[in-house]
Amino acid sequence: MIDFDFNNPTKIVFGRGVEARVGTEAAAYSKKVLLHYGGGSIKASGLYDRVVASLEAAGVEWVELGGVKPNPRIGLVREGVALCRKHGLGLVLAVGGGSAIDSAKAIAMGAVIDGDVWDFYMGKGKPKAALPVGTVLTIPAAGSESSSGSVITNEEGQYKRAVDSELLYPRFSILDPELAFTLPPFQVACGATDIMAHLMERYFTTVENVGFTDRLIEAVMKTVIDKAPKVLAKAKSYDDWSELMWAGTVAHNNLLNTGRIGDWGSHDIEHELSGIYDVAHGAGLAVVFPAWMKHVLKTDVARFAQWASRVWNVDMDYRNPEATAREGIARLEAFSRSLGLGTRLSDLGIGADRLDEMARKATDGDKRTIGHFVRLNSAAVRQILELAK
Amino acid sequence: MIDFDFNNPTKIVFGRGVEARVGTEAAAYSKKVLLHYGGGSIKASGLYDRVVASLEAAGVEWVELGGVKPNPRIGLVREGVALCRKHGLGLVLAVGGGSAIDSAKAIAMGAVIDGDVWDFYMGKGKPKAALPVGTVLTIPAAGSESSSGSVITNEEGQYKRAVDSELLYPRFSILDPELAFTLPPFQVACGATDIMAHLMERYFTTVENVGFTDRLIEAVMKTVIDKAPKVLAKAKSYDDWSELMWAGTVAHNNLLNTGRIGDWGSHDIEHELSGIYDVAHGAGLAVVFPAWMKHVLKTDVARFAQWASRVWNVDMDYRNPEATAREGIARLEAFSRSLGLGTRLSDLGIGADRLDEMARKATDGDKRTIGHFVRLNSAAVRQILELAK
Repeated sequence: MIDFDFNNPTKIVFGRGVEARVGTEAAAYSKKVLLHYGGGSIKASGLYDRVVASLEAAGVEWVELGGVKPNPRIGLVREGVALCRKHGLGLVLAVGGGSAIDSAKAIAMGAVIDGDVWDFYMGKGKPKAALPVGTVLTIPAAGSESSSGSVITNEEGQYKRAVDSELLYPRFSILDPELAFTLPPFQVACGATDIMAHLMERYFTTVENVGFTDRLIEAVMKTVIDKAPKVLAKAKSYDDWSELMWAGTVAHNNLLNTGRIGDWGSHDIEHELSGIYDVAHGAGLAVVFPAWMKHVLKTDVARFAQWASRVWNVDMDYRNPEATAREGIARLEAFSRSLGLGTRLSDLGIGADRLDEMARKATDGDKRTIGHFVRLNSAAVRQILELAK
Repeated sequence: MIDFDFNNPTKIVFGRGVEARVGTEAAAYSKKVLLHYGGGSIKASGLYDRVVASLEAAGVEWVELGGVKPNPRIGLVREGVALCRKHGLGLVLAVGGGSAIDSAKAIAMGAVIDGDVWDFYMGKGKPKAALPVGTVLTIPAAGSESSSGSVITNEEGQYKRAVDSELLYPRFSILDPELAFTLPPFQVACGATDIMAHLMERYFTTVENVGFTDRLIEAVMKTVIDKAPKVLAKAKSYDDWSELMWAGTVAHNNLLNTGRIGDWGSHDIEHELSGIYDVAHGAGLAVVFPAWMKHVLKTDVARFAQWASRVWNVDMDYRNPEATAREGIARLEAFSRSLGLGTRLSDLGIGADRLDEMARKATDGDKRTIGHFVRLNSAAVRQILELAK
């Protein structure tokens, strides 16, 4: 284990109908909030009306900014920043999934500085303050409802970049599993894949003596593998949704990387995919992760065999641990396909013509490497994309 | 799963030598603190000097109150309350294990009220405010360094009672696994047993659809079972201590009871043992828990069999799950003995003469039941104590 600080202050409010509490939770921070959301789904479902009623009942005024898209854009973030400044708003309330929440976090950082918040995403300076963020979660996936991260896409140049700061932990997050009942199956599948990816990024580490967090991560992975097919088969299963939703939050709240260093190379590679092709993050991860695994497997066959055996119930082949490891990867791919996702670039309709460009962008033209389990240069990223074809 | 709120704000600072940061962490809350600790061990080890040097370097003044004993007493708490009031102290800093921390939490509640803090422990009213508490942990055991609870003994009447309040989460806790290197083996064994007990109290629930937190709890139990014998065999193994220490904190920080209702009957029964006989809490739990299990086993044989199979690697006897369950209990007892602890009241030198009295006190003369997995009246507690003889 390596040394660490851990301090996740997000208050989780979990259960049936808990969105009725959003007004009182918000009012603890500000009586004037930015209500930030995506498209029409929260209006169609009636969630919008319930949130607004709760804000009104608590005497909270709001300014609205809808229109967040998957792979949220810096352009809309800048609109939100302007609204916060103009109206003196004191809280950014995201109602939606990871895109709305990541966008809200960006707005929260931008609202308290004079310059452009995109600079933080380009690594120029670090945020020193931010407005508080609250969330009402509708999609178990990104884990942003209790994480310190935000990922934003700059539509000029098709760049997708992340900021990580303790300032970005939401102050409160409202998790009602029933809100997930109406999600389209494709979004459910992408969400479960994103959760698995957060766990695998943390699992594959070169830090030794991390057996405790290994086991915690395995526990969450087993839960996702068990529950995702069940909610796809029965969309209104509260019991399955509740475990999957809570697992998705715990997967990414930073407890599971205490004392270890995660990899995150697959996320970086996927960001290039979704930056250019605007594919769903989870769909991209279902393609990139197995390819990454095949590329790095020999770095630590024992760790991959442990994962295959404990998480995927592969019979350990003691004479040939690599075969066990490879069977684990095959089961991950089969799991993705069982959720209805493709596992190759071709399944996403992505050809070979821009692989070089993605490999170059991922590493800023070899000015940096990505990943920690194995440090990848652009040639290595190119090989992984080749394995993903 | 049942609905829940979860909000654990304790900042964990974990690693080698991190006690050097106590001054800056404390100064964020107050420049005048109560330094609260137990006996001479922190002076003998040099920890006291390092803490004091860090406070001085950060410009933090302190008033001292040592002398906390295992099963911390309300008398000393009242002294601490008086010191906080007299000197206008703004933070209670506990340096030690669960006893020092629980005592600090009691002082923190008492310092801001006019009345007697013991009233809270007797269930008269709830705390509405408390001074902030910080900790430097020396014993992985009680989990109080990141919990919302405090257990205090009233020496008049030999009562041991608990308060649980979100106000009691420490603001920061400093965890240096090296501080555990000098613990006597008996304390190590009691600590590991206390951690296991916190996990088992949470594990045995009647709430259904809690597979996710089941698996998390199992992960922590397996870690304790793996690491406790290793640190007993090799006291200065940083790698093993670090995982055991962090596991002990996670075991009791309330994440593992999200969405479920723990039992806590064994803790209540043990409080009667240690209230009267002043036995170490962990030593008492090693006796009470197996007896409790034998008494309640048939309430949910499947859950006990799952625990035996997954946690203790008992081969599942599909035709006779109860045999699997009983083998799990036998392995728990064997584990305790391997740590050097007894598993019967007679091992603690406790005879049968006050069993009736303990059963009566545990239930306030049958004015209440204890436990949730099975609600126990005084007759049931008496039967459990009989099984523990």
